[in-house]
Amino acid sequence: MESRLNELGLTLPSPKAPVANYLGTKRSGDLLFVSGKVSALRGEVGSEIDAAQAKLAARDTMLDLLAIIKQDLGNLDRIVAVERLQGFVRSAPAFTAQPEVIDGASDLLVQLLGPAGRHARTATGVNQLPFGAAVQLDMILQVIEPSE
Amino acid sequence: MESRLNELGLTLPSPKAPVANYLGTKRSGDLLFVSGKVSALRGEVGSEIDAAQAKLAARDTMLDLLAIIKQDLGNLDRIVAVERLQGFVRSAPAFTAQPEVIDGASDLLVQLLGPAGRHARTATGVNQLPFGAAVQLDMILQVIEPSE
Amino acid sequence: MESRLNELGLTLPSPKAPVANYLGTKRSGDLLFVSGKVSALRGEVGSEIDAAQAKLAARDTMLDLLAIIKQDLGNLDRIVAVERLQGFVRSAPAFTAQPEVIDGASDLLVQLLGPAGRHARTATGVNQLPFGAAVQLDMILQVIEPSE
Repeated sequence: MESRLNELGLTLPSPKAPVANYLGTKRSGDLLFVSGKVSALRGEVGSEIDAAQAKLAARDTMLDLLAIIKQDLGNLDRIVAVERLQGFVRSAPAFTAQPEVIDGASDLLVQLLGPAGRHARTATGVNQLPFGAAVQLDMILQVIEPSE
Repeated sequence: MESRLNELGLTLPSPKAPVANYLGTKRSGDLLFVSGKVSALRGEVGSEIDAAQAKLAARDTMLDLLAIIKQDLGNLDRIVAVERLQGFVRSAPAFTAQPEVIDGASDLLVQLLGPAGRHARTATGVNQLPFGAAVQLDMILQVIEPSE
Repeated sequence: MESRLNELGLTLPSPKAPVANYLGTKRSGDLLFVSGKVSALRGEVGSEIDAAQAKLAARDTMLDLLAIIKQDLGNLDRIVAVERLQGFVRSAPAFTAQPEVIDGASDLLVQLLGPAGRHARTATGVNQLPFGAAVQLDMILQVIEPSE
């Protein structure tokens, strides 16, 4: 996956520290639980910002998550598969295109990891998110031990 | 479980394809992560539709999930246990009977699988769901390898 | 962890039964899936109640969860690590301090378990919760078999 980032001309941002008393990731055997991360983009989707902007924000948030995962794992090539992605979209009362928004994150995972990046997913609307963010993502990954 | 469906006179619907860039299910070892599926029933629970209607919709959505799981596993008898069910109910501001609604899905799992179908669960209200659906369900199952 | 509860002068409440057709916890191998539990405190955070009150409610709800887990495991010392905490906060439209609220639960886990209690986490706002509760928490733990 590291080389694929380069091929796509992508650079990971600096990993952001958790905003409260939790870890960026926690591992149990070969499962890695990844904490929720909110988008830098603030605003209610369907009123203050539109689906296309929120979809880009979901992609950027996935890059933020990957930066945190790289910091914790040492190397993104330890990712075997993405198991589950959960996406919350801060939604105006009539906004119902949450799947389109979360595709911003899912598309990137598939670009970077191919079939291993395809995942189970839930995309849900909510009325508010931390810091007024537009999007929030968390994940469960399958990972391998660091090579000796 | 397949025979139990017959005993109860239930027929699974045709499995519906994911509506965006994700899989219906993803497996890691003996855990199967099942993507969120929204009810065919649209509307806000507690205003446009009532708890009893939403409970039936939760049951129907669980049948939709089982159809997807059968397609992916080949045979529902590979389900060892239901570990976790997450249910989101599109809720009017004053609607607080989310547990009653999600029982529509939980009751069916217990009818079909007995004690193995009993599960941990979270039932939560949200202001909006994809396509304006009334209910959304996702699951984590324990499964076994296909028999040789 | 049992002795640490005593050191902190904490007593677990009586475990509350599930309010609908689900289990308090369900185990798969060394993972324990813990059902969502809502706070005894009712009200919308950011309007009817403030963040500090909701943070205390999150801490109390975690004690309720631990009481349920103790009932199911027999002994809280079987907890190896907290993997994931999910927190939903019933949020007024402008309330965005969900992480501060859920820290009420996270802080307690770290006090009780030290590094093993540190976890991945997602804190999300929603417009409504069962019974009009202020906070809802669920978890995934790593546990060990009972000692012979």
